[in-house]
Amino acid sequence: MNHSLQVELGERSYPIHIGPGLLKRNDLLQELLDARQIVVITNQTVGPLYSAPLRARLGAAEVYEMVIPDGEHTKSLAVFGDIMTFLLENRIERSAVMVALGGGVIGDLAGFAAASYQRGIKFIQIPTTLLAQVDSSVGGKTAVNHPLGKNMIGAFHQPCAVIADLDTLSTLPEREFRAGLAEVIKYGLIQDAEFFSWLEECCAGLLVRDPETLAQAVLRSCQNKASVVAADEREGGIRALLNLGHTFGHAIETHAGYGKWLHGEAVAAGTMLAARMSRNLGWITADQLEQIAGLLQRCGLPLKPPEGMGAEDFLEHMAHDKKNADGRITLILLQGIGHAVVCRDYAERDLRAVLESV
Amino acid sequence: MNHSLQVELGERSYPIHIGPGLLKRNDLLQELLDARQIVVITNQTVGPLYSAPLRARLGAAEVYEMVIPDGEHTKSLAVFGDIMTFLLENRIERSAVMVALGGGVIGDLAGFAAASYQRGIKFIQIPTTLLAQVDSSVGGKTAVNHPLGKNMIGAFHQPCAVIADLDTLSTLPEREFRAGLAEVIKYGLIQDAEFFSWLEECCAGLLVRDPETLAQAVLRSCQNKASVVAADEREGGIRALLNLGHTFGHAIETHAGYGKWLHGEAVAAGTMLAARMSRNLGWITADQLEQIAGLLQRCGLPLKPPEGMGAEDFLEHMAHDKKNADGRITLILLQGIGHAVVCRDYAERDLRAVLESV
Repeated sequence: MNHSLQVELGERSYPIHIGPGLLKRNDLLQELLDARQIVVITNQTVGPLYSAPLRARLGAAEVYEMVIPDGEHTKSLAVFGDIMTFLLENRIERSAVMVALGGGVIGDLAGFAAASYQRGIKFIQIPTTLLAQVDSSVGGKTAVNHPLGKNMIGAFHQPCAVIADLDTLSTLPEREFRAGLAEVIKYGLIQDAEFFSWLEECCAGLLVRDPETLAQAVLRSCQNKASVVAADEREGGIRALLNLGHTFGHAIETHAGYGKWLHGEAVAAGTMLAARMSRNLGWITADQLEQIAGLLQRCGLPLKPPEGMGAEDFLEHMAHDKKNADGRITLILLQGIGHAVVCRDYAERDLRAVLESV
Repeated sequence: MNHSLQVELGERSYPIHIGPGLLKRNDLLQELLDARQIVVITNQTVGPLYSAPLRARLGAAEVYEMVIPDGEHTKSLAVFGDIMTFLLENRIERSAVMVALGGGVIGDLAGFAAASYQRGIKFIQIPTTLLAQVDSSVGGKTAVNHPLGKNMIGAFHQPCAVIADLDTLSTLPEREFRAGLAEVIKYGLIQDAEFFSWLEECCAGLLVRDPETLAQAVLRSCQNKASVVAADEREGGIRALLNLGHTFGHAIETHAGYGKWLHGEAVAAGTMLAARMSRNLGWITADQLEQIAGLLQRCGLPLKPPEGMGAEDFLEHMAHDKKNADGRITLILLQGIGHAVVCRDYAERDLRAVLESV
């Protein structure tokens, strides 16, 4: 039931380990066991659950732990600065290894800290949410938010390993688990129609967190993510497809205020906007639109943006999004299930129409 | 009198152009002339002198300019955050090109901003101080300071070109010009004995800023820097030699308060400490120590740390320096003029002795 795969990036290649009980596997923690200084960045929810068992294995190393409040609002330049102070006060050296123990917020924040401290130290991702395991912990994107836009300040900094212990998902609140499914479904939509069908079939097992079904879903998601990242590490081309639903989704998150909508929820509503626009353009059929809405709905995910968020709100926030090029908002749209495309040459009125229709 | 050389870093290779009148050369500004959005980061001293002529050439592009107060204290996370806000408020896109127009502070600060904004945008270094032209603008090191240590927060982010217009040095205050010479002399000391001899010979011409002498000094410095960076981009090995005088120097800067001592002045005093320790170890002769002190002195550079700064002050600040590995402070020492070495296995008492002797 344990799986390992490799993100192929030349000298920056690294393994992703997926399975239950991995935090007890000394062989996977070797990089940490060899380090003289280890810095664990975690949050108030995850830390008490998984930090002690992890630390118990780290033996001789000096272990420093910084516990950050839970929530998207901590993914800020201010908390990033607090981490820098923590590292310097504890005289953390360039040879230290940083561990991000938590969900996407912790991974992005600690990852950017690892990228920037002394111009870069090693780090290991130990994602403890479904969203982090299937998406944010893989691929080296790190960032903090700015009040004017999500993930606007960051770095590409690849981890030296990702350890996705499926046992940690057992404590994940239902709402967060479901939000993670939005990113799982995304892989099916963008490039893996077979996976999408499997998800339609196995959705019930997934929702009750059946271990084998869950392992398959995480593995297949990571395989998809790893292949895209290997082909386009710095998002010059096809990596942009992974942003399906995200440009709309970021606008929702920024509009609602960080943390009100979970990232996965905003991505789900954003994916529906992309699907509806694709339908309006005649690129997908009404049946396919139904299929997409159906799967998202069965996973308990929102199909529409927040009440009262209008087209102007979207356009205002989307103008700041970094997926823009030369003044145009880049959209990821669908030409079928399993076939996403980067689209820049749409008519402005088609974008407006879909934003006004919901 | 114009020279170009290439920093060889595979797909991250870039040219350094050195000569008078370069800011008027459209062919060198091509990257900028092609961009839709250009962001110039400069300071209150340099901006009024060189920004207008540069902007006059940029024609059709949208040009945004952020003018920052002059001084080392602006190389902070707070000002970095202000730049991010400026970029987002002006809806700067990922395709924009950032220009660092100024000295080392502007280059380091704007460089880190370019590295981090939307996880990295292009930037061009237009260094206007001797120190920036011969050292900080080349090699991709970018950073801001933290109250607990210099350059502690940053990134490796290579520019896509360095344009060193020697005309800009004509407005450089004497004290800053001389501080820059400390980094020029450094190249002679670490790996280029012939250059050191040339500097001893041509020092007088350099001090009166004779154009041809100056061009030679900048060119030879950049050749040295480029060769070291090409061999070791991320300072895993020989690039550390460029830190000759810097570990001591950073301690002086931090102790004195950023900006009280110019970086080059602190490096000069730090270089003398390294030379004295090398002499104490019997690695260089008394004559060589005299030669080094003589050249630094002729350039008007300080040979000793600030009055009242004791050994404990040094050790405290140096413990934070990022050139440390596994608890030991790494030193760069000399085994001759033109032959620096990385040294970790010195006796603690030898370090203490040299710090207490001055």
